[in-house]
Amino acid sequence: MKPNPCLENIAPGYLFPEIAKRRNAYQAAHPDVRVISLGVGNTTEPLFGTIADGLVREAKALATADGYSGYQDEGREDLRKGISAAFYGGKFDADEIFISDGAKCDVGRLQLLFGRDVPVAVQDPAYPVYVDGSVLIGAGGAYVDGQGYAGITYLPCTPEGDFFPDLTKVRPGSLLYICSPNNPTGYVMTRAQLETLVSFANHNGCIILFDAAYAEFIRDAALPKTIFDIAGAETCAIEINSFSKPAGFTGVRLGWTVVPFGLAYDGGGSVNKAWSRVTATIFNGASNVAQAGGLAALSPEGLKEIRALTDYYLENAKRIKQTLEARGIWTIGGDNSPYIWARFPGRTSWDVFDELLNEYHIVTTPGSGFGPAGESFVRFSAFGHHADVEEACARLAK
Amino acid sequence: MKPNPCLENIAPGYLFPEIAKRRNAYQAAHPDVRVISLGVGNTTEPLFGTIADGLVREAKALATADGYSGYQDEGREDLRKGISAAFYGGKFDADEIFISDGAKCDVGRLQLLFGRDVPVAVQDPAYPVYVDGSVLIGAGGAYVDGQGYAGITYLPCTPEGDFFPDLTKVRPGSLLYICSPNNPTGYVMTRAQLETLVSFANHNGCIILFDAAYAEFIRDAALPKTIFDIAGAETCAIEINSFSKPAGFTGVRLGWTVVPFGLAYDGGGSVNKAWSRVTATIFNGASNVAQAGGLAALSPEGLKEIRALTDYYLENAKRIKQTLEARGIWTIGGDNSPYIWARFPGRTSWDVFDELLNEYHIVTTPGSGFGPAGESFVRFSAFGHHADVEEACARLAK
Repeated sequence: MKPNPCLENIAPGYLFPEIAKRRNAYQAAHPDVRVISLGVGNTTEPLFGTIADGLVREAKALATADGYSGYQDEGREDLRKGISAAFYGGKFDADEIFISDGAKCDVGRLQLLFGRDVPVAVQDPAYPVYVDGSVLIGAGGAYVDGQGYAGITYLPCTPEGDFFPDLTKVRPGSLLYICSPNNPTGYVMTRAQLETLVSFANHNGCIILFDAAYAEFIRDAALPKTIFDIAGAETCAIEINSFSKPAGFTGVRLGWTVVPFGLAYDGGGSVNKAWSRVTATIFNGASNVAQAGGLAALSPEGLKEIRALTDYYLENAKRIKQTLEARGIWTIGGDNSPYIWARFPGRTSWDVFDELLNEYHIVTTPGSGFGPAGESFVRFSAFGHHADVEEACARLAK
Repeated sequence: MKPNPCLENIAPGYLFPEIAKRRNAYQAAHPDVRVISLGVGNTTEPLFGTIADGLVREAKALATADGYSGYQDEGREDLRKGISAAFYGGKFDADEIFISDGAKCDVGRLQLLFGRDVPVAVQDPAYPVYVDGSVLIGAGGAYVDGQGYAGITYLPCTPEGDFFPDLTKVRPGSLLYICSPNNPTGYVMTRAQLETLVSFANHNGCIILFDAAYAEFIRDAALPKTIFDIAGAETCAIEINSFSKPAGFTGVRLGWTVVPFGLAYDGGGSVNKAWSRVTATIFNGASNVAQAGGLAALSPEGLKEIRALTDYYLENAKRIKQTLEARGIWTIGGDNSPYIWARFPGRTSWDVFDELLNEYHIVTTPGSGFGPAGESFVRFSAFGHHADVEEACARLAK
């Protein structure tokens, strides 16, 4: 039996294994050194009381005749209504919100709405996962180091271009992956930028897959937390979001997509109905325990806990950003996002990574791992315990 | 933007919506009648103490610094080792077991190992989901009512053929979906049948996707509970399994696949490594709470609870089977599985369904909904409260 040729196109996960390899080699050679990681996007802080209680209560209820529940493929209606109310001013119907086991899994399924013949465009740098679902079903070709997947349109987002893509490169009818607050740059698109994006998509028959997984880190009230703050987005955008980062649910697994009723294929077919069919076919619903936790997170107390948890990581981000800037290093992000994107002109990302590991015993993520436009940058993650970040910053300040 | 043509090939979920439609119409016309469902495969009974405590303990631990956990993409190693020990005599390495959010989701992803060009063969009747993953990526074509998807080889499994497929119809190099204990027939393949299957697959370059989700209902010690009881299966089979039915986790979401190191593509490439790449690409791990529940289910007390829960449903099955046979209706299944497959010669499945609904106020599942070979059969499900099953049987006995 032959392997799936599309699967063979997926580039082996080079970035994080290579980071682990270099870290482990350093640690083995220097067993007494305490290496601190500012490299990964995994949450580290325990759940707060209300949200944890939501999980506990549901787990207990499952042992009772009244509280037991089986398949919940479509997701609890109260959770879907609650998400609409908490994050979208109640403007979406429960059936426009789809509960999932997380944003990455949804990204993997979303390409199935459009198939292998759709042109795909993606921000550069970007979270590597965006295009993988496309490549797996044949909408992208082989990976070329330093260039990305054949057939995918990469859109450099650089400081010189205000981190906004050159949309003239995007073919009409494209699927357009956009992430704001961005991973890895931490940049948050302005209202004007999002308006340009939505207008372009509507005029060129594109659909935006908008990843807003870090929206709850936005503190600047002028910055939109959802693409659906922009008039016209309902006819050109799908939003992907998650409880992972705001509620600390990276391990609990709970996310959602918004697919508005107004989003249509050429000819008028409903994308909402198509997504319902995809998820009914290859998905079986998020865990009932996780859903109860999500519902607790949407209560007034739960939303305060989301605020407190994101504040915790934002404090880390501020500390890292200040430390880097005090050394004269140019950065962006970190004020409305948990990532700081630091520029080291004239150097390669891996060279800077090695210096930070060898001289400061700090693990970061080389920007070039997120795409060609990430070269000469390094990503600092604010996910970590205060004490670790404090020590890392003390080392960096020297 | 155009829809994915593969998605348009997926037949709309006709079976269960049509059942609901007829049931609702009957109930609306007869509001005073209490309709009892023996139609669905959803668990109904609360979790037992040890398993529920496993969930509760983990949910509480997530609120503590020591007990908090984030991403667990690969699944807990103790859970993977525990599954190998509890269900496979410890013969698999932890890295041959992959933890997932359930069998259906895994079935949806598994086709990505082989792509759109692989020939697909499936038992008939079968759970409709098996081929959907294939059709979604283009390995099957349009649905033809009464025939199934174009390009998919349907293998009738009938009483006359001892519910074993005619393997001469299977093309070399096929992906072969087999489910035992079977849904919907309740038939469990014998050791000799499984040996024939494994030998055929090994000699014809086929890979068996073996769904063993109902294995814990097997009580006859002569019947294998896993394909890996058969010598040679490690080079031709992937097993899909789940905590859903044995532990009552349909809502909690936890399953696994076994992909042996010995399973190879033409040319020797490791299918295990390929599956690792697929799941790393589009999956993010099962919920940490569900995994802790699964681990509790593997403890000596937890395994007793699995036995007690499956015994509960098997009592229902026995009662239904006896009632039908006392009326002279031919049945199979129900002794080592939670489904009873009842034959009504000369009648259509929907005709029998309507009579059972209108005369006995009992909802079943028409066999023809599981494939052409299911015509003239009806599936009775043993998932339900004892009292409801008792009342349904009292009606059926009249």
